[in-house]
Amino acid sequence: MNKQLVFGHSNPDTDAIVAAKAFAYLQNQLGVADAEAVALGNPNPETAFVLAHFDEATPRVIETAANEVDSVMLVDHNESQQSVSDLDQVTVTAVVDHHRIANFETSQPLFYRAEPVGCTSTILTKLFHENNVEIPAKLAGLMLSAIVSDTLLLKSPTTTDDDRKALEELAKIANIDVETYGLEMLKAGTDLSSKSELELVDGDAKSFDMGGKTIRIGQVNTVDLDDVFSREAALVKTMEEENQKNGYDMFLLLATNILSSDSRLLVVGEPKDIVEKAFNTELSDHNTADLPGVVSRKKQVVPPLMDAFA
Amino acid sequence: MNKQLVFGHSNPDTDAIVAAKAFAYLQNQLGVADAEAVALGNPNPETAFVLAHFDEATPRVIETAANEVDSVMLVDHNESQQSVSDLDQVTVTAVVDHHRIANFETSQPLFYRAEPVGCTSTILTKLFHENNVEIPAKLAGLMLSAIVSDTLLLKSPTTTDDDRKALEELAKIANIDVETYGLEMLKAGTDLSSKSELELVDGDAKSFDMGGKTIRIGQVNTVDLDDVFSREAALVKTMEEENQKNGYDMFLLLATNILSSDSRLLVVGEPKDIVEKAFNTELSDHNTADLPGVVSRKKQVVPPLMDAFA
Repeated sequence: MNKQLVFGHSNPDTDAIVAAKAFAYLQNQLGVADAEAVALGNPNPETAFVLAHFDEATPRVIETAANEVDSVMLVDHNESQQSVSDLDQVTVTAVVDHHRIANFETSQPLFYRAEPVGCTSTILTKLFHENNVEIPAKLAGLMLSAIVSDTLLLKSPTTTDDDRKALEELAKIANIDVETYGLEMLKAGTDLSSKSELELVDGDAKSFDMGGKTIRIGQVNTVDLDDVFSREAALVKTMEEENQKNGYDMFLLLATNILSSDSRLLVVGEPKDIVEKAFNTELSDHNTADLPGVVSRKKQVVPPLMDAFA
Repeated sequence: MNKQLVFGHSNPDTDAIVAAKAFAYLQNQLGVADAEAVALGNPNPETAFVLAHFDEATPRVIETAANEVDSVMLVDHNESQQSVSDLDQVTVTAVVDHHRIANFETSQPLFYRAEPVGCTSTILTKLFHENNVEIPAKLAGLMLSAIVSDTLLLKSPTTTDDDRKALEELAKIANIDVETYGLEMLKAGTDLSSKSELELVDGDAKSFDMGGKTIRIGQVNTVDLDDVFSREAALVKTMEEENQKNGYDMFLLLATNILSSDSRLLVVGEPKDIVEKAFNTELSDHNTADLPGVVSRKKQVVPPLMDAFA
């Protein structure tokens, strides 16, 4: 049986790490491949809390794949700029994802499973059912954590009935009180005081090609926006440095208050007028804008930006 | 409920027409959308035989979608050059396919279900199960016909255990003897005498972008290769005209003997040396080459060509 690596996107969040573990487990149970779950970066504080809570090992971090295997499986992403740097040198045999499809091309048919739901681990819950494979209690706890993380305890507008159903079912298997555990977990991910400016702006950032421009979009969750914007000058300086170093045209930082489900945007680079158009707002002198009710980068930030750039 | 059109690729084969009908039926049963199955071309003789056999209506033919709907669902294809000409002006909400993914991009998450199996209708059979929707006997007969067509009665190397299982199950529902009906159906699709040269070379053709070149690949099934190559000079002339008219760099016609499971290739245009490299063969003076054991464009022709162009 051929060895394959399974991984989520770079700057991994909890779903990227957990979905890789879950899909690798499923593939191994089905005898499809000798699958190893790895990660394209170290766990963030929230994910570290989750792995510690369930006494689960931190996955091995890789940067390239072709030096180890011929074939890989992607979870929670498909765009090549969010993946290993040598994705074009390996065969993608499977994708499980809940994002738009872009910058992704294969020369062979493959297994591709995407659904417009809030979390990859929700789709994986279905895949376990369809293949009649039981979800072990510990894995159910991990997958439940990914759903809590991606949907902000089912409060994000990306949340679907499928997510609610999967979360309820996983909570039963893992025997966990979701409200209590979920809030504890989300708060563990929002202790920003120990984070550097670079960790704040780039820790969860992804790159997007929009109208020929490279747009970097980071998101940081908090229970108090002042924890972020008291450091605004230093954040702007870091974002300017990142733009220059990596050739980004624009860096957007979405600071999200997970208790009130609102965000404030900080914009560095150009074209800023497209951002104003996308969100039908005006940027302040500090190049910030309040985005009431916005909590989802994927559903509420990327699509209007894509439309405004088109 | 929003109206959506469901369709397979242009130059539709039996799977393209049938999969659209099956997926539209499923979506309507699930109440997901008010879905209408349409087609990007008229049925070929094989599909006409199938529709007549099951007393099923010929689908309405469309060329564009945005003049009718905001959203569409694709079956049996995803590459934009095989779809409606205005695909970029509508939202693709769902794809069910068994081909490689390329030249496909969305700005929003969507439902995407691809598996490396022999036929879209095999995947659809699974989707009916997963959603607990019964397949009516007539639809089972149509879906069974698509599997027979795409896998050449399970003889194509694209055939998987999933195709065999789906075919067996659909045969039971439709109460049909697959061997007898299947041969009759395949032969109905190979009466070439009444076909024009253009119908022969372009009737099932698809365009591919390979290394910046536009490669057109047609396939014609027959029970006697002489039925095709007795008309070689006229076929070459038609392929030359098509190249010029449509800006194709190269036109390949794969003539497949469905009884012996062999093919002969006819090549018009450049670069021919890439074709020789792809199939490790030499083209004759007539720019033909025998390809023993080759019956699948998708699995045995496109991938080696893609590799040779890369």
